[in-house]
Order: sequence, then structure tokens, then C-alpha cells
Amino acid sequence: MQELKSRILAAVQDDLLLIEEALKENLAPRLDLVGEVAGHLLFSGGKRFRPLLALLSTRLCNYSSPGAVRFSVIFEYLHAATLLHDDVVDGAVLRRGRPVAHAVWESPIVVLTGDFLLARCLSLAAATGNCDVIATIAEITENMSQGEIDQLARKGQIELSEDEYYEVIRRKTAVLFQGACRAGAILSGTTPQRIRALADYGFHLGMAFQIADDLLDYTGRTEALGKRVGADLREGKLTLPVIHALSRASAADRRRMGAIIENQDFSTAQFKTLCDLLATYGGLAYAKEKATAHVAAAHGALAQFSPSPFRATLGDMVDYALVREH
Amino acid sequence: MQELKSRILAAVQDDLLLIEEALKENLAPRLDLVGEVAGHLLFSGGKRFRPLLALLSTRLCNYSSPGAVRFSVIFEYLHAATLLHDDVVDGAVLRRGRPVAHAVWESPIVVLTGDFLLARCLSLAAATGNCDVIATIAEITENMSQGEIDQLARKGQIELSEDEYYEVIRRKTAVLFQGACRAGAILSGTTPQRIRALADYGFHLGMAFQIADDLLDYTGRTEALGKRVGADLREGKLTLPVIHALSRASAADRRRMGAIIENQDFSTAQFKTLCDLLATYGGLAYAKEKATAHVAAAHGALAQFSPSPFRATLGDMVDYALVREH
Repeated sequence: MQELKSRILAAVQDDLLLIEEALKENLAPRLDLVGEVAGHLLFSGGKRFRPLLALLSTRLCNYSSPGAVRFSVIFEYLHAATLLHDDVVDGAVLRRGRPVAHAVWESPIVVLTGDFLLARCLSLAAATGNCDVIATIAEITENMSQGEIDQLARKGQIELSEDEYYEVIRRKTAVLFQGACRAGAILSGTTPQRIRALADYGFHLGMAFQIADDLLDYTGRTEALGKRVGADLREGKLTLPVIHALSRASAADRRRMGAIIENQDFSTAQFKTLCDLLATYGGLAYAKEKATAHVAAAHGALAQFSPSPFRATLGDMVDYALVREH
Repeated sequence: MQELKSRILAAVQDDLLLIEEALKENLAPRLDLVGEVAGHLLFSGGKRFRPLLALLSTRLCNYSSPGAVRFSVIFEYLHAATLLHDDVVDGAVLRRGRPVAHAVWESPIVVLTGDFLLARCLSLAAATGNCDVIATIAEITENMSQGEIDQLARKGQIELSEDEYYEVIRRKTAVLFQGACRAGAILSGTTPQRIRALADYGFHLGMAFQIADDLLDYTGRTEALGKRVGADLREGKLTLPVIHALSRASAADRRRMGAIIENQDFSTAQFKTLCDLLATYGGLAYAKEKATAHVAAAHGALAQFSPSPFRATLGDMVDYALVREH
């Protein structure tokens, strides 16, 4: 895994620097406080996965306008805006190993900073002058906001089906990955077929990424994650390992699991019991298998492009989604 | 005033029906809850001032595409999204005589519904296929969000200057009025000069509208307002009558006023004392005078168009802004 990570970083290091610079330049808050609140999250070591996807998509399609970098930051701002509102909504405590913004500032200012970032996204989208790009970004924001409401409405429901779970993570993550890649392709003026291929790539990468992320909540280590293991469950969020295990468990074990899930203050011992049951009923293996299938589909979409360093890096990023530890 | 109101309503009744229909049609939430939360505010008797401005602006410029109605609802959704977030941020209790959304539903769902409405605005903007229209809407959202943060940061500051107050209400209200008119003109494909004229009209109307609105907080009646008289002051918001009176008051009266303002739990008697001091030091008259100047400027901008029923109605709407009681 370390080798894969090093290879990706070497390939994208110049682009990452451009993105970091553009993230600072285009924030342009007229009030210091907004810059501080937005910066707290924006400049706390995010992986810049989303702007990188957008930028690499333009590069894969041979688009070389310098405006591509500025365009790519839309997807990090959009992500940050969502995280800010999400953390307020969820009452989360840690994000990327640091206290969430609303633990440092009052929730109102955090809500408004999220709004500001959304507004910046809209301005940057308008600046592309490409209505199809703008429409794609509009679709992303609408899908994501519906998804968050959906997730809030379902919170604590122990009956989340596997299909409902896929719909939740599609809107929460895959839609943004897919949109970043699709918008990058559209901006590049490539063929409809390639736009579709890149959108498919982004979608499957996003699904793999989120399933793997949800798995980490059961298999990761708190230090590496930057948030507490089991945090999803404490927030009442059911994810694939649990959903699958519940569907396979005996009535007695289903009750045991249910009792732990419904008690959001479960102990470490109870969490351990739950993890053991997830392993027993194949929940962890099943989630891994599903993520792997999406990884394969993402590679399949990339196969529509001729080999190039950019295609190789996008391929590496898919593999990394599966093996990363945080 | 009643005559003016009747004349406006008669002139716009068909357009109002089209707007109401489009507001319902374009909401399109995939979850009932979102529709309920958004509908609670959207369908509680708003005056539809903003979509009407956008629509009348297109009509004044001889634009007759049916898409104009759909376009106009952007400005009501934008307004509603802002109100939803604003009420959460301010901890307000009543809006249009009804409990605010976050008193009925939990704040998170209200925040997310605001996000959904913003996303709908973006989609509807993208659907116009006109990048200049989209850029105008982007500018509005950015200005408004900065304005809200600005206002939050200043809350309770007794030193708000008159110029700072104008900047607050510009962002809070005038920017949206101005943007609705400008975007309507741009969509119509009219001349740059007319676009500017309509933008100026909207700006001055917005300023007059907000100064008059702020005056009502001291001169209106709770039943007509749909919120408690003195509500702004209780939220720590300084407005023009107070700012002006403070600047003219004797040191002793300044202290008396300051004590009432800083104690947000002031009694009715204290509020009466404050209102008397506002009258004594000309705060109410001064605010009225400023609003009147903006009304005149708005009429001046309209004078660049030839006489027409639409121009007459836009003129009536300016006059109404000044005399309305809620």
C-alpha cells in the first residue's frame, strides 16, 4: 500500500500544489472569520481527492487550460460545505483528528460559512461559462442535499436495506466523485462516450471509496482515522457490514446486535462483540467484496481510454481507495 | 395605501397565480419531509415580491418566453433558503405570524432544507442556459451569505455606523432585489443600459423596502407584522432609527438608550421609552426620509423605460414598499 501511495503522490504532486494554491486564492472571504472557519476544515490535511479527480479528468481528455485548476477547487469547496453542515447536523466531535468547526465556533457561523462555500462554488461554476458544467454541479448539490436529508430522516432505523444503503452512499459520496469527473470531461470538450466513461469511473470509485470508508469504522484504528472507531454506529448510521450481518444472523444474534446498535452509548466490550458478530456473519468480507466489484468496474470504465500516465494514476487512485487505512 | 395595494394586486394577479403554481411545481423534493419544511415557509403567505420583480422585469423588456415564470421562482427559493438559515442562526420564534420552521422541526432538517432550496436555485439557474444570468445569481448568493456572516459578527455591537448599516441591508435585501431585476433584464436580452437601469431600480427598491421594514419594528403593530414589535432590537440588531438617534442624543439619553438596547429582555415600558427617544431625536423621521430618497431614485431608474402597464406596476411597487404596514 505504501508503494501505491508513493506512486500516486509522485504523479500528482505538482497538481496538488496548484490545487492548494487555488484553494487559498479562490476562497476570497471578505471577513476574516469566514476565512478562519472555512480554513479550519479546508486546510487540515484533506486528501484533495475530489479536485484531483476533476483535474486529472481534464488532463486525461487533453485539456490544458490553466482555468482547469480553478475549476477543480469547486469540488473541494462543495465537499467542505457539506462537511461543515453535516457535522453541525450530526453533532460530530472530531473530523480529520481535529475538533469539528462547530466545537470551536458557534453553529450559526459554521452554517453560514458552509453557505458561503456553496456560494463560492456557484461563482466558480459560473466562471467556467459552460452551462453543461454548471448543470452537472447543480445536479450534484441537489442530489447531495437530498441525500443528507434522507440520511437524517433514516437515522437510527435498524431496518435500512442494502439497496437503501447504496442509495445513501451514492448521494453522500459517489455523486460528487462522479460529478467531478463528468464535469472535468465536459469542460474538456470531449466526446459523449468519454464523458460517460469518466462519469462511470467516478461513480464506481465513489461507491468503492465510501464502502471502504464505512468498513474502516469497524476495522481501522482511531489514531489513523482521525475520528473514533465506531463513530458511525454511535451516530445511528447503519453501514454495509452491519446490514449484511443483520440479514444473515440468527434471531438471537440479531437481537444482541440490535441491542448494541440501539444503545448509542455502547461500551468498548460491546463494540468488540459487535465486530466479532460482523466477522462471524461475513459482514466485513461482504462489504470488501462489494467494494472490490466497484473497483473492477471503475477500472473497466478507464479501459475506454488509451494508456497514459493520467490513466495510470486514476487507476492507482481506485486501488488506493480500497487499501487505505484512513 | 389600500388603493395602491389593490391596483398592484389587480395588475399582477395572473402572474401571481403562475408564480404560485411554479413554486409548487419546481420544488420537486424527493422526500415528503423536505416538501413539508420548505412548504411551511414557502406557502405561508409570502408576498412573492422577489419573483414578481424578476418576472415583471422580463415583461418590461418584452420577453415573453414561458420559461420566465420558472426562472422567477429562483428568487423566492433563494429568499426562503436564506430565511430558513437565518431563523436558525438568529433563534427567531415567529415568521409571518407562524412559528418558525426550526420551532416545529429540528434545526438540522431546517438547515438541510435550506441547502436543498439553494440547490434547486442552482438547478433552475442552470436550466436558463444563460451564463450571465447564472453569474448574477452566483453573485447574489455570495453577497447574501457574506452579509449574514457580517451581521452575525456585528450582533449586539452598539457602535454600528450608518454606513455599516447600509452595507448590512444592501447585502441582506437590496442585493437580491437588484439581482432579480438584473437577471430578468439579462434573460430578456435587452441592452446593457436597460440592464443597468433595472438593476438600479431593484437596488433602490430593496434599500427602501428594508429601511421601511426596519422602521416597522418601531412603528408597526405586532398583529399586522406577524412578529413581535421590537424583535430586531431583542436580537441585538441595530437599525437606522436607533443609529441616527444615538448619534444625535445627549450623553445622558445615549446612556439610557444604550442600557435598554444592551438588555435584550427589556420591558414594554422600556421599549416605549426608547421609541419616544427615537422620535425625540428624529430617528424615525430620518429613516423615513432616507427610504423616500431611495424610492425617488427607483422611480428615476424606471424613467429610462417608456410608459407601459408594467412600468406603472413596478412604480406602484416602489410606493407600496414605503407605505405598507407589514
